[in-house]
Amino acid sequence: MNYKMILYVIGWVLNFEGAFMLPSCVLGLVYREQEGYALAVTAVLCFAFGLLIIRKKPKDLLMYAKEGFVTVALCWILLSAFGALPFALSGAIPSYIDALFETVSGFTTTGSSILSEVEPMAKCLLFWRSFTHWIGGMGVLVFVMAVLPLAGGTNMYMMKAESPGPSVGKLVPRVKRTAVILYGMYVALSVLQLIFLLAGGMPLYDSFVTMFGTAGTGGFGIKNDSIAGYSPYLQWVVTVFMILFGVNFNLYYLLMKKKIKAAASSTEVRVYFGIIATAVLLITINIHAMFPNIQTAVRHAAFQVGSVITTTGFATTDFDLWPSFSKTILVLLMFIGACAGSTGGGIKVSRIVILFKSVLKELDVIVHPHNVKKLKMDGRVVEHSVVRAVNVFLVSYLVIFAASVLLISIDNFDFTTNFTAVAATINNIGPGLAAVGPTQNFGMFSDFSKLVLTFDMLAGRLEIFPLLILFAKSTWAE
Amino acid sequence: MNYKMILYVIGWVLNFEGAFMLPSCVLGLVYREQEGYALAVTAVLCFAFGLLIIRKKPKDLLMYAKEGFVTVALCWILLSAFGALPFALSGAIPSYIDALFETVSGFTTTGSSILSEVEPMAKCLLFWRSFTHWIGGMGVLVFVMAVLPLAGGTNMYMMKAESPGPSVGKLVPRVKRTAVILYGMYVALSVLQLIFLLAGGMPLYDSFVTMFGTAGTGGFGIKNDSIAGYSPYLQWVVTVFMILFGVNFNLYYLLMKKKIKAAASSTEVRVYFGIIATAVLLITINIHAMFPNIQTAVRHAAFQVGSVITTTGFATTDFDLWPSFSKTILVLLMFIGACAGSTGGGIKVSRIVILFKSVLKELDVIVHPHNVKKLKMDGRVVEHSVVRAVNVFLVSYLVIFAASVLLISIDNFDFTTNFTAVAATINNIGPGLAAVGPTQNFGMFSDFSKLVLTFDMLAGRLEIFPLLILFAKSTWAE
Repeated sequence: MNYKMILYVIGWVLNFEGAFMLPSCVLGLVYREQEGYALAVTAVLCFAFGLLIIRKKPKDLLMYAKEGFVTVALCWILLSAFGALPFALSGAIPSYIDALFETVSGFTTTGSSILSEVEPMAKCLLFWRSFTHWIGGMGVLVFVMAVLPLAGGTNMYMMKAESPGPSVGKLVPRVKRTAVILYGMYVALSVLQLIFLLAGGMPLYDSFVTMFGTAGTGGFGIKNDSIAGYSPYLQWVVTVFMILFGVNFNLYYLLMKKKIKAAASSTEVRVYFGIIATAVLLITINIHAMFPNIQTAVRHAAFQVGSVITTTGFATTDFDLWPSFSKTILVLLMFIGACAGSTGGGIKVSRIVILFKSVLKELDVIVHPHNVKKLKMDGRVVEHSVVRAVNVFLVSYLVIFAASVLLISIDNFDFTTNFTAVAATINNIGPGLAAVGPTQNFGMFSDFSKLVLTFDMLAGRLEIFPLLILFAKSTWAE
Repeated sequence: MNYKMILYVIGWVLNFEGAFMLPSCVLGLVYREQEGYALAVTAVLCFAFGLLIIRKKPKDLLMYAKEGFVTVALCWILLSAFGALPFALSGAIPSYIDALFETVSGFTTTGSSILSEVEPMAKCLLFWRSFTHWIGGMGVLVFVMAVLPLAGGTNMYMMKAESPGPSVGKLVPRVKRTAVILYGMYVALSVLQLIFLLAGGMPLYDSFVTMFGTAGTGGFGIKNDSIAGYSPYLQWVVTVFMILFGVNFNLYYLLMKKKIKAAASSTEVRVYFGIIATAVLLITINIHAMFPNIQTAVRHAAFQVGSVITTTGFATTDFDLWPSFSKTILVLLMFIGACAGSTGGGIKVSRIVILFKSVLKELDVIVHPHNVKKLKMDGRVVEHSVVRAVNVFLVSYLVIFAASVLLISIDNFDFTTNFTAVAATINNIGPGLAAVGPTQNFGMFSDFSKLVLTFDMLAGRLEIFPLLILFAKSTWAE
């Protein structure tokens, strides 16, 4: 285990976290909010630890898969531990466990909150809270790789560990260049949304915060009613951009390279849009009687579907009041999630497609035992190791899911609450149903349950393996 | 596709169904119940169709995997279609869809009922209702194979398709002999339970019916309060036998052959008993305050745990009133299910073990990429094809589960009801929670939902593949 290198990366991540806090500090000054001090103190702490750690660059920059997974897991835990300090130090969220829950919810782009009211919180803290979505969306280690001159090929393991999807590939041969391109597209799309929001008359501060929540598919807002208070135009802008940020960024790269045909034929993206269209249609039929006209019904259906499948978690209406059929569709979308290689969470559309294809292939083996075909996607054979990893992901996902529902059931809330609380956190969505519905929050859970759900949020964002590797005995055996 | 052979087997299954109805007809005579006529008419119908079909034995007895799966699926559907007639013809269950639901629930050893009261039903019909559990438990095609001189090795496919578990093996080289041994052990264990029940003072009729429900891990009873009205001794007898019928019958064969060591070292059976012990302990701690003394709490905990993990579905108390933690344990046990090669349902302990081991192996691959070990169970390598089939089973199981919850949600019951209704039927348990809890029934669902749940019961009992193969286009392509 290359401990020096792991520590070195952690040091840089802390430095960047300090830097990421500076805009919020400035806002604290601008709005003359006391809470700015807590942000400033934390930023100084981040720099102090960070600069101390990175004084000496290790000679051996080599990282294997094991180191990549461990680094990513540790970085995310520390990032959250420090990121929670401003809330706790300022007294805005007095309990550190609550502050940690809120921060992990931010970085993992979950958007579940323990706050019953967000509006009283200081603007600089709310800005930091939403900014964590934007940082966590594309990934902090991808950012580190885009900026720092680290060693070449071996960083791929860190990117694989942090980026969502069953088979993370490079856009271009060099990892650093890939990271730069990813962040470039991310910034461009974010700016584009900002322009559309401002054009609709949304205030500058609101626009930034809403954009952070959309781009990271996070869902933290600054209003108690989430997006419900904004105009239909703004709701549509958010709907469209949520769905765009849930698309595999490979697609945008293909479009940039003018490979329109390849982009249009991507199975994952076609299935993704197919599911969205179907879900919007079915829900609209199911709920149209609840709204004054069909346009309103479509708008709310599209917003909620986009919000849930991309695992953003914004809301324009209390969908916990919808009929069972619509709610069940939303629960199913929670599990499907967005595309691989997007900022969204969930199981990911490409994994679902691979799993479906593996079933069809098995039926084919029974019917035509002498004529076995390989599993293909987008014309290419899906490697056996990828199929295996997808299956193992599904199993560990279900095990963590079941264990979490059991552990939080000790608090004695109803089954729907427990089930959807875990679904909303492990899939990085935000709200669930019943006592954790869109107008409710996670504050009523015990500290123990909050820690369980915090683990689920991290497990969901990092797609489980980094945390399992971190806690596996054999990782630390030598 | 060897259509003649498929039809021939169906013919024999119908003949046996007619024969299986005779004891109930006799009971109708004894108790002088009018409903006996409906049973007699149906038995005559079964013989008429059956004897017509089997007039000519096909020359080509060869069956491949495809034929095996299709035969099993069709036999079970027809068995249920005819088995429902006595209920419908007698007017005891006026709606044929309700009668079909009840009969499929019987043969698949589910035990979910559409009846709000069972006590008013004629005794001969109740006997038939429970006897379907006993027939379905070990399997009707296994019975056919034990009795009929069919061709040799190729019947293995039928046994594989009907018997539960990830890798169905023969106890002895010949399939027919294996089937005879299995039914022999089944009858012996059933008689043993009957003796214990009679010794506890249970009336003869009650003892038979209770034994049918236990042996098949079905759960149909003749009392509205299930087993709650019987003495603690009788409740313990049922508890112990439910758990015994949930054990892999291979174990009993090993014990018969005095291979005690091999029997004691079976991973599946050890895990099975380990789960039961842990669940009973946790639930007892959680519920003991609800009962006058600890013995009563242990008895109810053990009964309900045994009932749910073996997917029997008997109840001695309304566990829907238990705290969330205990209810969640029961819901998780619903999914785990009994051992492979038992009469119980669910995913099966051995599949769960294989899935867990596949996760540990994958972690090992990441940590030690150059030192890959094979997946082993009970000292033997688990074939790659078995692991793949287990994964594919899990995926199709989840897909059918999700689709079913969505489809029945159209009826607009709450999420807990829909989720546990599907869990209770696809895992062949019987009762769920909330509106389908142990004191409730499935009568309030629409006909459409009842058909969905009927499909789930068949899919659960036959472990999905036979039904998928039956409905796959490529099966019928030639």
